[in-house]
Amino acid sequence: MHVHIGPVETPELKRAVLDAGAETAPLEEASALVWFGAGPERFAEYDHPGLEWVQLPFAGIEPWVAAGALREGITFTSAVGTYAETVAEHSLGLMLTGARQLHRMARAHEWTAPEGMRGLFGSTVGIVGAGGIGRALIGLLRPFGVRVLATNRSGKPVAGAEQTWRAADPEGLRTVLAESDFVVVAAPATAETDRLIDRAALESMKPGAWLINVARGSLVDTEALVAALDEERIGGAALDVTEPEPLPAGHPLFDHPRAIISPHQANPASLLMPALARRVEENVRRRMAGEPLLGLVDREAGY
Amino acid sequence: MHVHIGPVETPELKRAVLDAGAETAPLEEASALVWFGAGPERFAEYDHPGLEWVQLPFAGIEPWVAAGALREGITFTSAVGTYAETVAEHSLGLMLTGARQLHRMARAHEWTAPEGMRGLFGSTVGIVGAGGIGRALIGLLRPFGVRVLATNRSGKPVAGAEQTWRAADPEGLRTVLAESDFVVVAAPATAETDRLIDRAALESMKPGAWLINVARGSLVDTEALVAALDEERIGGAALDVTEPEPLPAGHPLFDHPRAIISPHQANPASLLMPALARRVEENVRRRMAGEPLLGLVDREAGY
Repeated sequence: MHVHIGPVETPELKRAVLDAGAETAPLEEASALVWFGAGPERFAEYDHPGLEWVQLPFAGIEPWVAAGALREGITFTSAVGTYAETVAEHSLGLMLTGARQLHRMARAHEWTAPEGMRGLFGSTVGIVGAGGIGRALIGLLRPFGVRVLATNRSGKPVAGAEQTWRAADPEGLRTVLAESDFVVVAAPATAETDRLIDRAALESMKPGAWLINVARGSLVDTEALVAALDEERIGGAALDVTEPEPLPAGHPLFDHPRAIISPHQANPASLLMPALARRVEENVRRRMAGEPLLGLVDREAGY
Repeated sequence: MHVHIGPVETPELKRAVLDAGAETAPLEEASALVWFGAGPERFAEYDHPGLEWVQLPFAGIEPWVAAGALREGITFTSAVGTYAETVAEHSLGLMLTGARQLHRMARAHEWTAPEGMRGLFGSTVGIVGAGGIGRALIGLLRPFGVRVLATNRSGKPVAGAEQTWRAADPEGLRTVLAESDFVVVAAPATAETDRLIDRAALESMKPGAWLINVARGSLVDTEALVAALDEERIGGAALDVTEPEPLPAGHPLFDHPRAIISPHQANPASLLMPALARRVEENVRRRMAGEPLLGLVDREAGY
């Protein structure tokens, strides 16, 4: 298969194409285009009659839909799910940090074991807003044999979760909070999810449980969280996002023995290209093997 | 199935037996015995003709072999592998801490993103001394799609590793060190492994790679490691064990931007009982279902 990479070719993408067993080629000879480095306004320059498949580098392709760039006769794939893996990996790191008190060990100047060591094996993990990140996290958690409880917008069962509730069902959220040893917040920021984790929600959490927020700061009431941590009502909090964000220097959460702040680094710029390259390699391999592509765009649905 | 727990019955073990669907019973009515709280010298008090299976709480059962307590006619199972999971979980936590620079985030007093963020997805992980802990770690790493390189005493291929070398083969160790993004040391402390990771070994590591030691402090030359970190020759080091141990208060490794010390907490006392309870539940379930038991003791081999 002949693949063109453009408008910008990076060494990582080139290597991904070659590692998958395909060849890179000039645009006019390529039936596949790995798009990188520009928006849909430049796509017309690259479109040609021999083009059969275009891999886009974005998880969300709304601008391409809006621009009418997804023309018929071409198979488009997005990078949906690719970056979710990166965020899920970070989430697992934050969970293990809390479980094993690694944040306190990192701060120690002497050989003292902190209390409150927990394990992930056999624990219950609640995912509030289980979409792509939640599914990726469930995949990473599989070897730990955890029990997963989930909420999502539709209430449609999430694969790997013991039970899934509609996000709008307050009883569901209460159950997830009450039974989980780790609560991972991964829901979109909307009017409905604003301060979803407020004082009452924190009070319904299991004593000793950890709250992990990799969604948006607005979903957690910061003041109520600091109070819950100060009063030792929950085990701790690991926040990749905060309200306000950035959290002002010297904010009590930075040094709190029950908290770790990761400054919006769940999906850092340095990991975007490796994640994209993995997806490109996988999809080129699949295309050559005639297997279903990941992230196939549904032109009618617009995603 | 009737199960007796003794000499000491804990709530966790009782719950494990009941959760597996069995009943707890007085000793004389029990065909299964979950042993806890004493050594082999007290086993004769508990042995009776109706006893068919004994679950021991230890990973190593040398004292039982030496005492001749493993009488014929009874199936014995040890807890081998159970605690390896706990250490593997901790190892993964240390790897993710290094990859995502969580130790530096934990120490920060303001919203600044450290450099050097890496990912586990698609990386190469070297396991020096891949036994029970290594196998458990490979299981946890499976969803990350990592490439695993291993060494062990025999050189017998480790399941899930791309290649396994004999520990005594210096070329093998050099390859593992040169190609791995994360090197996990999990070998026993012997004369052969004393200061295995010395200056030359550290120099053969990939720039940016992390060293994780969950074995024994004697395997790593601390002075050479501090030099490698100071000179930024490797990405960092996460040490659960050190030489000397405990590391004296104020030692430069405690605050080093490229290091995290977890004070011999990979297998903390607080996680022993949960780990054992999980194994008991699984084996009781298997026994009732007629499935092969985990940790079956080979009386001839003595383990």
